Amino acid sequence: MIQKLMDEIKIKNAPVVVGLDPNLSFVPKHLQDAAWEAVSDGSCTDDELALRAAAEAVWQFNKAIVDAVYDIIPAVKPQIAMYEQFGLPGLAAYDRTVKYCREKGLIIIGDVKRGDIGSTSASYAKAHIGRIGIAGRDIPVFDVDFATVNPYLGSDGVEPFVEVCNACDKGIFVLVKTSNPSSGEFQDILTEGGVPMYELVGRKVREWGERSMDGRYSNVGAVVGATYPEQGEQLRKLMPTTFILAPGYGAQGATAKDLSAFFDEEGAGAIVNSSRGIIAAHTKEAYREFGPEGFAQAARAASVDMIEDLRQAIAER
Amino acid sequence: MIQKLMDEIKIKNAPVVVGLDPNLSFVPKHLQDAAWEAVSDGSCTDDELALRAAAEAVWQFNKAIVDAVYDIIPAVKPQIAMYEQFGLPGLAAYDRTVKYCREKGLIIIGDVKRGDIGSTSASYAKAHIGRIGIAGRDIPVFDVDFATVNPYLGSDGVEPFVEVCNACDKGIFVLVKTSNPSSGEFQDILTEGGVPMYELVGRKVREWGERSMDGRYSNVGAVVGATYPEQGEQLRKLMPTTFILAPGYGAQGATAKDLSAFFDEEGAGAIVNSSRGIIAAHTKEAYREFGPEGFAQAARAASVDMIEDLRQAIAER
Repeated sequence: MIQKLMDEIKIKNAPVVVGLDPNLSFVPKHLQDAAWEAVSDGSCTDDELALRAAAEAVWQFNKAIVDAVYDIIPAVKPQIAMYEQFGLPGLAAYDRTVKYCREKGLIIIGDVKRGDIGSTSASYAKAHIGRIGIAGRDIPVFDVDFATVNPYLGSDGVEPFVEVCNACDKGIFVLVKTSNPSSGEFQDILTEGGVPMYELVGRKVREWGERSMDGRYSNVGAVVGATYPEQGEQLRKLMPTTFILAPGYGAQGATAKDLSAFFDEEGAGAIVNSSRGIIAAHTKEAYREFGPEGFAQAARAASVDMIEDLRQAIAER
Repeated sequence: MIQKLMDEIKIKNAPVVVGLDPNLSFVPKHLQDAAWEAVSDGSCTDDELALRAAAEAVWQFNKAIVDAVYDIIPAVKPQIAMYEQFGLPGLAAYDRTVKYCREKGLIIIGDVKRGDIGSTSASYAKAHIGRIGIAGRDIPVFDVDFATVNPYLGSDGVEPFVEVCNACDKGIFVLVKTSNPSSGEFQDILTEGGVPMYELVGRKVREWGERSMDGRYSNVGAVVGATYPEQGEQLRKLMPTTFILAPGYGAQGATAKDLSAFFDEEGAGAIVNSSRGIIAAHTKEAYREFGPEGFAQAARAASVDMIEDLRQAIAER
């Protein structure tokens, strides 16, 4: 699956993934109003109705953004928390978004950050990237192409995902060095010998990855925050066959220059995520001209700018 | 909320939580057959039908188990992965199970192991233990009493959960030392100064917990695997106001004796989980007499035995 992602990045010449993390505050009022109209059939409680309206608004928002950017970007990364917060209707909107992105030919990275003890991780792996066996059938469930995975429980929490990567030609990105301000609290802790924890995790990711190679890179990738360029540069060297998913560009403060060392000598090996910077572009000064009605075109303009920014940074190295 | 859990443990004199992790292989055939009957209305695809049947079987299984044990145990711990693997119908079964357990007066620990960067963790916290604001309403979503939380992203991934604990009188259990065989891979790594990683996490849990005290213990608890008795004893001392959720009894190999040091001098401060050991008791030699039809009564018998086993181990210290 990582080869497919690399091919798509090459075709579109855009190492960019758009994060579909639709906070309701990004969703323009006209869409929210229309969503309430669409779900008001009086057949449920007021609370349930509100959850359905929020989920419908989020789905319509996503659909418009995807329609506006699918021809210029290779992949999307829906953050499942933003759907889970609207309960079952929210998760139905997640499912619908995933299916729609697939129709549009996009690669889908489910940002689920799951991870548990072995048998439980196996269930998560089936749910998100694999298939579940019921009565002799093998059924795809949420069926994204990549899932993000939390490594805190060690190999037996990650390996069931690797097995599913191999069985179903899918991929994962394991959290190594996350983009948030307090990621260093445990990840940067120096272990005996002076090696930071994230590096130990990085070594393990490389090792797990050897069991699922797909061309030059492995289906077992790593999440490395664009907000930590030094660690990114170091991890790029430490994990030469590990593809990097780098969140943190834009709203979280990382620039294209910060990211240049995340890529290999051919300008491949990494994909950069922006969520708010793209999907909430219409709320930013730079794209305000589009107005709330033009939110999807603002997202396209922000995507074009981000792609250009990264191309330039890679070219200028 | 932790005080409420402690009160319920005291009333029932049972520091036991039953893990509702219904693998389909535990669900007797007669229940699975009945579930297929119940959902076969021909209005969906075969794959969708199978997911609905699995979810219905799991719900009926849970309901019978809960009916059989609710008067003798204080709490249940549904493992959301086992529901997520059946997609949207599975998550509806999770929701239904949670609501039913609440009706029966049980405290519910949602074993979700969520954790992300700050704003995303806030969404998870709202989804599982808090309320989501939509159009001026404050709506409970999955609405369990406690959620399990993964600490790998550090304070800004955990603090949004602590805020919700305070706002909604709920609790969390943060993974400190997990019960699985490879938990030591990262958690036991010695950091500079010779302190293992799990101890650094334990100190942070204690610190986070100071912001949400509820009587003698904090609403911010810790997951410490019963399979690691030495670490459990050490963490009990290190985190004197941190309530411990201890998985790993029974099927994973831990005994009541292994657990005795997890409790404080009054025999409080911890609750022990068993999942397969209770809900799949009818498949074990010791409870085979109940047969598949008596699976719920087998679960009750296994619960009674586990409670007695723990009471004795605590008394004999």
